[in-house]
Amino acid sequence: MIRYKITLEYLGTNFCGWQRQKNSYSVQEAVELAAKKLLREKINLIVAGRTDAGVHAEGQVAHFDINKEFCPRKIQLGINFHLMNTRFGKDVSIKQAIKVNKNFNARFSAKKKLYQYLIYNSIHRSPILWEKSWWVRRNLDIKKITEASQYLIGAHDFTAFRARGCQANSPLRTIESIKISKSNNTIKLQFSAKSFLYNQVRIMVGTLKDVGSGILDVGDVFKILNSKDRKNAGITAPSKGLTLKRISY
Amino acid sequence: MIRYKITLEYLGTNFCGWQRQKNSYSVQEAVELAAKKLLREKINLIVAGRTDAGVHAEGQVAHFDINKEFCPRKIQLGINFHLMNTRFGKDVSIKQAIKVNKNFNARFSAKKKLYQYLIYNSIHRSPILWEKSWWVRRNLDIKKITEASQYLIGAHDFTAFRARGCQANSPLRTIESIKISKSNNTIKLQFSAKSFLYNQVRIMVGTLKDVGSGILDVGDVFKILNSKDRKNAGITAPSKGLTLKRISY
Repeated sequence: MIRYKITLEYLGTNFCGWQRQKNSYSVQEAVELAAKKLLREKINLIVAGRTDAGVHAEGQVAHFDINKEFCPRKIQLGINFHLMNTRFGKDVSIKQAIKVNKNFNARFSAKKKLYQYLIYNSIHRSPILWEKSWWVRRNLDIKKITEASQYLIGAHDFTAFRARGCQANSPLRTIESIKISKSNNTIKLQFSAKSFLYNQVRIMVGTLKDVGSGILDVGDVFKILNSKDRKNAGITAPSKGLTLKRISY
Repeated sequence: MIRYKITLEYLGTNFCGWQRQKNSYSVQEAVELAAKKLLREKINLIVAGRTDAGVHAEGQVAHFDINKEFCPRKIQLGINFHLMNTRFGKDVSIKQAIKVNKNFNARFSAKKKLYQYLIYNSIHRSPILWEKSWWVRRNLDIKKITEASQYLIGAHDFTAFRARGCQANSPLRTIESIKISKSNNTIKLQFSAKSFLYNQVRIMVGTLKDVGSGILDVGDVFKILNSKDRKNAGITAPSKGLTLKRISY
């Protein structure tokens, strides 16, 4: 068996998320179908981070094993070709394919993940950013958001920022960095960590947004973290604002 | 009659362009329909620059006259509200509405227009930028493109860079600036001028792309300009890569 690592970009809008599901259409299914047409064997993709319905990726990573060796460039271009004839396949593209050794595992070898969240902050909608951002009308104070985000950096018990369905054994996670910037009406929040809990980024964004709009004080984020109670944090921000930017190995 | 100036953002993908047409759906029609629902009178939009099918706008400008005075904010939010119930209306948004005096004309008072063109330059497609860029597989030399673009800056007879259907009286135009930059796989070209000929930006981009790929030499752009023959220039780059960014008055 030969192992390949692929890096993927996709627009999450039309998918039920990364993972195969009955009666709905996933990124995994699109790529596995296209790969089968090229490779003439069924592959099973192991992904670095499952993304939810509507979440986008610019640097998702997966690996798979096949019996017959293929040139990596042929794998990239061939799967991309067959994706064009696959349902919603035009919303997925393989950015890179390389041969890796058996020690590599897309999920377990990941050292760092970078997620980006976009908020479009204006009284008017942005049609151009509609599928890639969360539209927030009330004016957000980016200085307060940045201040509050400092409480989330470092190693913490993130029970308050974890979705009910989260299957991780431990609620402990280490946020390496949070970068926040604003350009015109677009607020960009970037979160970097080895791994995140289920919906953690979106719940952190939903909470920081409440700080920005004045519903919460800056210090409340510290209290919410220590409360270890999901009910105290903000809403789970909409999936369409989230993009998995990069995974480092 | 009271005159209002509106600034618009739209995603051009689903429209036949700005201008009303029989049997197809325009941005103008979407906005005029939504405005009629709010204002209870028919308006006629005069636009700064008609855009073609597929072309996007972040700062299109138009004006209209009505009999009854409305608060500008009500015009903005009210039209945006009714756009949501108009066909493809969610692809349009009014970013600003202000009252102006009768001397203001969206088309004739414009002092400067800024257009942006995006090329996605990679062997793989970008699903995320698909509707907003031109996918060019062959590696483009951005240094050569930048050098060649210098010939286009300034006052010239742009007959060679003008579509057949162009109705302008004179082929003389003055390009104030061209800025070219590259970030990851995305090449951004920005063109600034008081006005452009029909398809001028897209033909300039199609020609500069040929310089970047080596089909044309840098100096050929100078020769093409002087030939005053459309046949010598490159193709008209696809509309979906073009965005009307800003109009100054």
